[in-house]
Amino acid sequence: MPMQYRPILSIDMVTSCSGSRENRTVRESFRASAPGKLMLLGEHAVLHGNRCIVCAVNQRLHIIVHPRHDAKINIESELGHYQADLQNPLVDTTFRFVLTAIDQHKELLSQGFDLKIESDFSATVGLGSSAAVTAAMTAAIFYMADQNLEAIKIYDHSLTTVRTVQGSGSGADLAASVFGGILLYRAFPNEIIPLKNIHPITVVYSGSKTPTTDVIQMVEKLRNRFPQQFSFIYSAMDVSAEQAAQAVKETDWPTFGQLLNLNQGLMDAIGVSTKKLSDIAYVLRHDSGILGAKISGSGLGDCVIGLGKHENPIGYPLLPLEMSKQGVTID
Amino acid sequence: MPMQYRPILSIDMVTSCSGSRENRTVRESFRASAPGKLMLLGEHAVLHGNRCIVCAVNQRLHIIVHPRHDAKINIESELGHYQADLQNPLVDTTFRFVLTAIDQHKELLSQGFDLKIESDFSATVGLGSSAAVTAAMTAAIFYMADQNLEAIKIYDHSLTTVRTVQGSGSGADLAASVFGGILLYRAFPNEIIPLKNIHPITVVYSGSKTPTTDVIQMVEKLRNRFPQQFSFIYSAMDVSAEQAAQAVKETDWPTFGQLLNLNQGLMDAIGVSTKKLSDIAYVLRHDSGILGAKISGSGLGDCVIGLGKHENPIGYPLLPLEMSKQGVTID
Repeated sequence: MPMQYRPILSIDMVTSCSGSRENRTVRESFRASAPGKLMLLGEHAVLHGNRCIVCAVNQRLHIIVHPRHDAKINIESELGHYQADLQNPLVDTTFRFVLTAIDQHKELLSQGFDLKIESDFSATVGLGSSAAVTAAMTAAIFYMADQNLEAIKIYDHSLTTVRTVQGSGSGADLAASVFGGILLYRAFPNEIIPLKNIHPITVVYSGSKTPTTDVIQMVEKLRNRFPQQFSFIYSAMDVSAEQAAQAVKETDWPTFGQLLNLNQGLMDAIGVSTKKLSDIAYVLRHDSGILGAKISGSGLGDCVIGLGKHENPIGYPLLPLEMSKQGVTID
Repeated sequence: MPMQYRPILSIDMVTSCSGSRENRTVRESFRASAPGKLMLLGEHAVLHGNRCIVCAVNQRLHIIVHPRHDAKINIESELGHYQADLQNPLVDTTFRFVLTAIDQHKELLSQGFDLKIESDFSATVGLGSSAAVTAAMTAAIFYMADQNLEAIKIYDHSLTTVRTVQGSGSGADLAASVFGGILLYRAFPNEIIPLKNIHPITVVYSGSKTPTTDVIQMVEKLRNRFPQQFSFIYSAMDVSAEQAAQAVKETDWPTFGQLLNLNQGLMDAIGVSTKKLSDIAYVLRHDSGILGAKISGSGLGDCVIGLGKHENPIGYPLLPLEMSKQGVTID
């Protein structure tokens, strides 16, 4: 597969953050928004230098920005309210991603603003709200500061913010929130290959979720017991991500589906499947409209994704999610 | 792990085929019997030069031998009757393993015999009746011909017979039928490491079975699509077999159980699990008496083995199978 490495992206992706304007001080309100993501392949493996496949979805996180004449910042969301001064945005726990982004770019900003954060994410699934709000906030800051809106720059700065807040993170969710669509992603060495095509999906919620950090801890414990097996399994996931990217390029969705099935087994092997998740995956695969099915995300709950639209009742609650080509936008 | 290679076995295993007698022409009736087997780890991978774990079980195939004064051979079993001459045992389809064994060793035999073949194998599961009957027949021939009864010799000659009949075969089932107990096994280069310990098991029948040759064909098709992934997966199975052997030596059964769980995922990845097999494996694992669970055999049906005795109702039919240390015997 011919590989596009990252330096190329900063040229290719200049316009991938929608929104253009004349060079002037921003006085009007605007909206920055970024999509949530679903992991398709290689979760867990991506934490160890392997490639994964992630996609943006049609549920987005929005930040409506009202520029102010003073240096005050007001944040309003379903989670609460927050007031601060631009030059001293003490990082409140509730809005730590937004406030850290502001803090890290405050020298670019000459005016305060009121922010209204709205999310159309399903509350139940891990669509990556931290990544989405960071991407949207970073894009909003660059827009207000009259910076160019290259996607790769938004991604880089957002990643710095996310890692400042949580200390680590693969950045895969951030890549999806910034670039949109399906991406082949590797954290280190960093590689982001946006792919042009998307496909309908069926997303089933398993009814519960184990916190990602708990799942990662459990997986690491098992990996320490069986390091050789995990090395082989993660390598199989890495190769699968590469082949899946090629399949997306060629719109060879049956191959993508087979790779989902194969990797569902690998997820089971690393201990993140359950009786229910496995059952959902098999129910989906038995549906004639589904090309393959696999846990999406860290596992031990959350959701199972089927490639294609189900044609028969699945018997589990479905989430109204689809892939989306739209990354972070200003409008 | 210190490895015992095969040449050592022919010394270690001299007495592993029970039965001794004075050097004389056999006139009395005797019984040769050999156990069936269950695959524990590495099925499919063993066909590609990787190690597997196989164990003998407490259901056996018996051949009762009545030496004759003439050169006739009579075979009687539930499958039918057969009559032939020792020097010209035309290979009938029903008794092809027995007759091929006789044909390949007819120069050792000076007298005919009546054979009564009895099996206490469950008819539903693939315990390896071909391997067991070949091992028992070969031991019976060597006994009648006053040959020594080294296990490794019985194994070697039986393997020749099995491969003459069916053209291929890993020989893992034959190793279990000859040596008994749990074995670390590799077909090529050939390596057989009998292990001293066994453990109670719970064996659940899934209610159906897909012919092994069909499953192998399906797996090979998928392997041709995804050769790199299969190479990694088979390597993970190989390492698992090695670690499981070490766990058996150290009676570290919890580790053996974890390896079963991990390898159940790998079996799922290569496409030989089903909704039901996966469900059975999870039901078994949730039982407090079970240390781990995995498909046993080629998959797409047949049975799931749990390490340990279940303490609660499983909700699926159980098979009355246990591991057994007893290999091929003459009595």
